[in-house]
Amino acid sequence: MLKITLDHIIELLEHEKYEELKEKINQLHPGDAAQIINELPAEYQVKVFSYLSPEIASDVINDLHDELREDVLESIQQNRLVEIIDEMDSDEATDIAAELADHQLKDVLQKIDKEDSDEIKQLLVYDEDTAGGIMQKEIIAVNKEMNRAEMIDHIRAIYDDVEKLYYIFVTDKENKLIGILEVSKLLLCHDEMKAVDIMDEDVISAPVGMDQEEVARIFRKYDIYILPVVDKENHLLGRITVDDIIDVIDDEASEDVYKMVGLENEDKVFTSPLSSVKKRLPWLTLNLFTALLVSSVVGIFEGTIARLSFLAVLMPIVAGLGGNSGTQTLTVITRGIALGELTLHNTYRAIVKEITVGIINGLLIGSVAMLIAYLLKGNIILGAVLGISMVCNMFIAGLVGSSIPVVMKTLKIDPALASSVIITMLTDIGGFATFLGLATLML
Amino acid sequence: MLKITLDHIIELLEHEKYEELKEKINQLHPGDAAQIINELPAEYQVKVFSYLSPEIASDVINDLHDELREDVLESIQQNRLVEIIDEMDSDEATDIAAELADHQLKDVLQKIDKEDSDEIKQLLVYDEDTAGGIMQKEIIAVNKEMNRAEMIDHIRAIYDDVEKLYYIFVTDKENKLIGILEVSKLLLCHDEMKAVDIMDEDVISAPVGMDQEEVARIFRKYDIYILPVVDKENHLLGRITVDDIIDVIDDEASEDVYKMVGLENEDKVFTSPLSSVKKRLPWLTLNLFTALLVSSVVGIFEGTIARLSFLAVLMPIVAGLGGNSGTQTLTVITRGIALGELTLHNTYRAIVKEITVGIINGLLIGSVAMLIAYLLKGNIILGAVLGISMVCNMFIAGLVGSSIPVVMKTLKIDPALASSVIITMLTDIGGFATFLGLATLML
Repeated sequence: MLKITLDHIIELLEHEKYEELKEKINQLHPGDAAQIINELPAEYQVKVFSYLSPEIASDVINDLHDELREDVLESIQQNRLVEIIDEMDSDEATDIAAELADHQLKDVLQKIDKEDSDEIKQLLVYDEDTAGGIMQKEIIAVNKEMNRAEMIDHIRAIYDDVEKLYYIFVTDKENKLIGILEVSKLLLCHDEMKAVDIMDEDVISAPVGMDQEEVARIFRKYDIYILPVVDKENHLLGRITVDDIIDVIDDEASEDVYKMVGLENEDKVFTSPLSSVKKRLPWLTLNLFTALLVSSVVGIFEGTIARLSFLAVLMPIVAGLGGNSGTQTLTVITRGIALGELTLHNTYRAIVKEITVGIINGLLIGSVAMLIAYLLKGNIILGAVLGISMVCNMFIAGLVGSSIPVVMKTLKIDPALASSVIITMLTDIGGFATFLGLATLML
Repeated sequence: MLKITLDHIIELLEHEKYEELKEKINQLHPGDAAQIINELPAEYQVKVFSYLSPEIASDVINDLHDELREDVLESIQQNRLVEIIDEMDSDEATDIAAELADHQLKDVLQKIDKEDSDEIKQLLVYDEDTAGGIMQKEIIAVNKEMNRAEMIDHIRAIYDDVEKLYYIFVTDKENKLIGILEVSKLLLCHDEMKAVDIMDEDVISAPVGMDQEEVARIFRKYDIYILPVVDKENHLLGRITVDDIIDVIDDEASEDVYKMVGLENEDKVFTSPLSSVKKRLPWLTLNLFTALLVSSVVGIFEGTIARLSFLAVLMPIVAGLGGNSGTQTLTVITRGIALGELTLHNTYRAIVKEITVGIINGLLIGSVAMLIAYLLKGNIILGAVLGISMVCNMFIAGLVGSSIPVVMKTLKIDPALASSVIITMLTDIGGFATFLGLATLML
């Protein structure tokens, strides 16, 4: 699809051929235009965006990196912003609206089309992580009594406003959702057929307050592309499309791995350094305190270390392997929870499994470590101390790596928050305490 | 959608009410049936699957956990397997075919419909991680000269074989892809219109050998639901649907976080313990050697530790914080690469940013650590040694956490393989060496 390369754009910019640039960039698919602008050197990004027609810009702006979109919104002229928002679907317009300063928002809502402005106001009410927060108001709904010709007329009348028209929703006279109808079925059916005759009654819908991660699970489970959103009385409110769900899935996947290492969602590759520092600092401070806790456990055995300094040389081995085993278990379990594979019915089995794996791996790796320690230091008891403490620590790794996220899930705390810092602290403490404790007793 | 609960199913099983069970389970949406079977106690799973009608079973089997699907395929009767595969779309049938033993596969291919068997044979040729490996042969393609009535007749003739019929592909007489046509457009257009008049010429397609991760990026970038797949001469071969792309995105997200902690893809919550042990062992062995390397660096300073045993108490702090900072940077960078945010044009900026963040965080956290060490031990030089080594180590963390995955990407090695074990080894060595080295010099 790409019809112009990044290098060529930069060349045009450097030679100040702005007219040519404007023409070329507006011929691109919005997806390509967004990618190019995201990749441009920082000094050109806002400038190139300003050359986009409102129509293209309306599809590009939500695909810009967060910080860049903020820059664009700060420097954009109010009239241009209104033109761009006028071109947007209601869900995307709402995302932008939510990022505007209050006075900017108020002004925009006055200047755009009344109907669009009402829709945005309705959508702004919902939490952005819920079905309501990601749905759009652009839908085609027909009354169940409509016949084929009436339905086609109805579709034709509003066709231009609705993209991705694969399904029509069927409602009763109170606007309650009672069925769904594939457009291809409408294409093939006879003229006298009514919506109610050809619709699929087994319609899957999402309540407006449902968490977006749960909504993503519905898309996964039923392999659907479009999902109607309803209120408590089953009134049709909007629809969610699968392209927005892909964004949700990407975000949630990032979020899970981010939380595991103590990162915040907004901390991306091109977040400004100071902003990243601010976001990571609380977690590193927590980490400093867990490290001090670990250090104080080692401190209990300072006398032993003063006597047998080689223990300090070997102790990182016990802690290191325990930490990594624990992180592995944690990853398997939190990913299993995220994808819905792990439920209350089968957790016990999963925990037992992880502990078993920890013990077996501990026995195998511990034996090798024991042998190596014996060969290096010529001390069989030291070898035994190292081996035994590794088995203990990998047992601890299996136990805490699996049970902590599960317990957190049961307590309705996000299991991804059972970050590696907590697991590593526990395996560090477990490793140092068993190794140095056994050494104090046996050597 | 769910019309029967897991508990109710278990009750029916315990009371041996198999007829009722069979009736209830076959009324479920396949997505719900798969979920229930996945969650059942292990002894019931294969049994309940055997009660599914071939039609439901064909949609359920690919949603079972890997190990369970293996169990099902091992115990299934050949005739039933043939019935099930007969009901499947070509892409899913191929996935199952790829898992069958050679004699099983040969027999199945003989017994199913000739056309289906040919399609499966064609699809089995492609690598399962490519566009060819995830595409299906069920498509509707029309010749560009067809008019509306001919197209509708054509669709009607093969309508039952193709699900998710939102787009029709338009080809020339050599079966080369020249356009795409939304079904809703066909619904609304005039009778005399030809395919070539109403099609969209700007059709996005994937070459059959494209990596599935790249295919997923196309779906993301262009917000599409259906993607045609073509060979080098642009002949239309098949299509990829967005539900399969969601599976790809889930798998790739799991794969990335798995590789980071040294896990293999197939190591899931319910993989058998022995199989998990086998999969994790090579990586833990590597980890043992990196730990020995770290230990040997500490060994250089054993004399210093023997003299100043409190250094062994404090050294885990330097290594711990460095390791976690490094993992944070690694996560931001590999996630940025995976989502396509990081490209060759902007890597330098990203590395500089991560190093800056490392140094600033090192200065802040290092100062606090310095203060704490001074308060605890009353030794200002010891505090300075701790603080300075923390700054150095968090600089190292930023440097290696960002540059290693980038270098690997440039060398076309999967950057997610820059696993935390390598980064942690480097920050461990960096931390211990600077801390103990400075201590040896200054204390």
